[in-house]
Amino acid sequence: MESRFSPSLFVDLYELTMMQSYFFNNKNDIAVFDFFIRDREGTPRRFYVFAGLEFLLEFIENLRFDEEDIKYISELGLFKDEFLDYLRNFKFEGDIFSVEEGRIVFPDEPLVEVVAPLPQAQILETALINLLQFPILSATKFARCFLVSKGKLLIDFGARRAHSLWAAQVAARCAYITGFHGTSLLSAGKKYGIPVYGTMAHSYIMTYEDEKQAFEDFARLYNGTVLLVDTYDVEKGVRNAVEVIQKLKDYGIKIRGIRIDSGDLIENSKKARKILHDAGLQDVFIFLSGGINEYKIKEILEAFPDLAGFGVGTEATVSADLPYLDCAYKLVEYGGIPRMKLSERKKTFPGRKNLKRLYKAGKMMCDVVIPFSNPDDMPDESELDSDFDSYEILLKKVVDHGQVVEKIEDRRKYIFYCRDRFMRDFDMLPEYLKKLEPPREGEKYPVLFGKELSSIIRSTERKIQESI
Amino acid sequence: MESRFSPSLFVDLYELTMMQSYFFNNKNDIAVFDFFIRDREGTPRRFYVFAGLEFLLEFIENLRFDEEDIKYISELGLFKDEFLDYLRNFKFEGDIFSVEEGRIVFPDEPLVEVVAPLPQAQILETALINLLQFPILSATKFARCFLVSKGKLLIDFGARRAHSLWAAQVAARCAYITGFHGTSLLSAGKKYGIPVYGTMAHSYIMTYEDEKQAFEDFARLYNGTVLLVDTYDVEKGVRNAVEVIQKLKDYGIKIRGIRIDSGDLIENSKKARKILHDAGLQDVFIFLSGGINEYKIKEILEAFPDLAGFGVGTEATVSADLPYLDCAYKLVEYGGIPRMKLSERKKTFPGRKNLKRLYKAGKMMCDVVIPFSNPDDMPDESELDSDFDSYEILLKKVVDHGQVVEKIEDRRKYIFYCRDRFMRDFDMLPEYLKKLEPPREGEKYPVLFGKELSSIIRSTERKIQESI
Repeated sequence: MESRFSPSLFVDLYELTMMQSYFFNNKNDIAVFDFFIRDREGTPRRFYVFAGLEFLLEFIENLRFDEEDIKYISELGLFKDEFLDYLRNFKFEGDIFSVEEGRIVFPDEPLVEVVAPLPQAQILETALINLLQFPILSATKFARCFLVSKGKLLIDFGARRAHSLWAAQVAARCAYITGFHGTSLLSAGKKYGIPVYGTMAHSYIMTYEDEKQAFEDFARLYNGTVLLVDTYDVEKGVRNAVEVIQKLKDYGIKIRGIRIDSGDLIENSKKARKILHDAGLQDVFIFLSGGINEYKIKEILEAFPDLAGFGVGTEATVSADLPYLDCAYKLVEYGGIPRMKLSERKKTFPGRKNLKRLYKAGKMMCDVVIPFSNPDDMPDESELDSDFDSYEILLKKVVDHGQVVEKIEDRRKYIFYCRDRFMRDFDMLPEYLKKLEPPREGEKYPVLFGKELSSIIRSTERKIQESI
Repeated sequence: MESRFSPSLFVDLYELTMMQSYFFNNKNDIAVFDFFIRDREGTPRRFYVFAGLEFLLEFIENLRFDEEDIKYISELGLFKDEFLDYLRNFKFEGDIFSVEEGRIVFPDEPLVEVVAPLPQAQILETALINLLQFPILSATKFARCFLVSKGKLLIDFGARRAHSLWAAQVAARCAYITGFHGTSLLSAGKKYGIPVYGTMAHSYIMTYEDEKQAFEDFARLYNGTVLLVDTYDVEKGVRNAVEVIQKLKDYGIKIRGIRIDSGDLIENSKKARKILHDAGLQDVFIFLSGGINEYKIKEILEAFPDLAGFGVGTEATVSADLPYLDCAYKLVEYGGIPRMKLSERKKTFPGRKNLKRLYKAGKMMCDVVIPFSNPDDMPDESELDSDFDSYEILLKKVVDHGQVVEKIEDRRKYIFYCRDRFMRDFDMLPEYLKKLEPPREGEKYPVLFGKELSSIIRSTERKIQESI
């Protein structure tokens, strides 16, 4: 669609005005920026799934300003020639540490940490947040569908109402990482090797005068197909399907299931099952779509478990009950000195960090945010409920002096790895987090701060309070 | 970012399985599909703004399957060689009629009508909905901000939390069409000629030991700039700004305004205004950002009108209170016969159509959906409250036998045209639609059906009821 996309111009103007000021004021020391999710009371999420790193790495590798970009920037009338020359030769040469894609994470945790000369770390802000925010949002939403799906088939049907073609591809990828079985979207199937699913739309039926003829023509072409039965009337549609199934049996043609896409899905499923049962077609499955989200999956399966699965569309693709994450990319250290923002309800935690996860009896026990320089830092003992069996450090170096450490050579293999990574974390997720409702007081996963980090936070805050 | 994007694979699998069935069953007659917004009770929108046509036209022009696509499709194991050959030579050769971008529209109206051989009309479904849905959603949301902005400056700040880089560009474009003054996003500025705005982030301040020094360095580089005052404490920040403003005045350096991005924006604005006033700096403006949406703009301006404007971010970019549109692309005619879907709550209106808008005293009076073949069709007189002064036909041919009728040669000029188109419609919008609340009973804009169309609907429904 785009003859050429300039990743470098995926920048808010203020990143460049700040950069020019850094440039002329020689503020080129090493800066550390953290990307994290903000904790907000009442947010309907007990856990999040980290995703999108692949897109960030792709962006870092392509971050350049070409002459067309420079010309545009120059015409804004804000930038001097010396700075434009600097941009001409710009590339990212810093380090980036990140949690792996597919991992379960929580608010207030450093998920990505950028360590680079100040202007280089600054310029990533807009793109980095954009490239991570939606994947995390999306993976988290799909993981919630997986959480309540009891092993049923889950297919992403959301492409048409994603906020762009690209968002649709990203969503299909996130759905697959978090336990979905496939997508309807061919471009995602091709790019990521995700299995693709789909049969017919209502329009197919409507091009025929006779629903049965439509079913028959389709089944003759696709042995083992699924028929959409609710174009005009679900009960009549199922009876028509039954007739066609019985007729085609003699020709060795099988119809594996029916799909219902409208009305009261529980009632319609019950009616359909009864008709199929009465016709001796117990093995024909029922697949549901239309307005499905995690709450509906849970409700439907509790009322009527005899289903093959769900096509999950719009509601999950746009994460309708939480269409954006409160997340940020903030300066936490500059020139070796921890930095901290004290804005109301938007405080940040200073200093270069890492993230440690403690396990007990095969389950996550708590996470500990620690200073990067002290992996042994631990929270005050009073904050730990019990001993832990093992621990793990979650931030890993993914970009070293501007070079991606492990290039993603094979996207298809990579997302299998991410999916496996998610499944392993999901197995270790404590039961109290496996709920759809917002966490109540005392039900939040403990994200603790190491003693040394806590002391850095306190002293930084004190110093700022004294200086302003 | 993408070395190559295959627009043709932006297709749900079922479009292709249906196409193959049409192909082998010789269902190649002319089909008509309508794209429309579904009316849903309680939706917080009194009007919508049509947008996204540019993207659809770009898609139509690029819709081809290359050998890599064919190879992928072939490997799915569902498609025969004869059909793959057909895809190899596929191009869209139909007609498309559309409302112009920037026009105010309503549910149940045909906004885009595709008239093409069935397989060609079918394959557009997924991409067409995707390429129109988000732009309409986004333009509508930004138009609501414009509606309550009382002429204040409105800048799109949402790039970072859009659902993809592309969505961010689209949102910036939609914001500009519906009355915003600019965007922070450079790629949108470059592509569409939208004015770009921006100064500094909190991180800029935090790299300094001293807020005043940060302000001063910045102002010396950008005469006439705006200072962000809430990094640590709003009141202290404003006092620091005042000191710097007064100091730099002697050097001929002006600071035009301050920005507040956190806390209680009304209270913080009042405090800031008082400090500025006491310092004799009445002409320094206050600009607000952080969690802004149309409801907040209205509330803030009612409480404290002495503001320059707003940076509108995430809430508008993802259309947080309505993150997707209930919209559809449905078959309404095939082989000259009107078609209709009767699924519960998902009925469609049959037959090829057009849309007529009636005006009275310079305001929109009502819209009338009419058969394409009868522009004179009118609703029953009992449905019309009064006489009308003039009328207009809203659907225009934009693709003729696969060729775009008016190529968009200059994107920058085109969006000025769309913006003007929006402004003209906005001027004619009746007062009862210029409210943020969901329309109550009797407050909906009348979308009526012509008598002839109503009779087509009734007879189609009757025929289907008899046949199933």
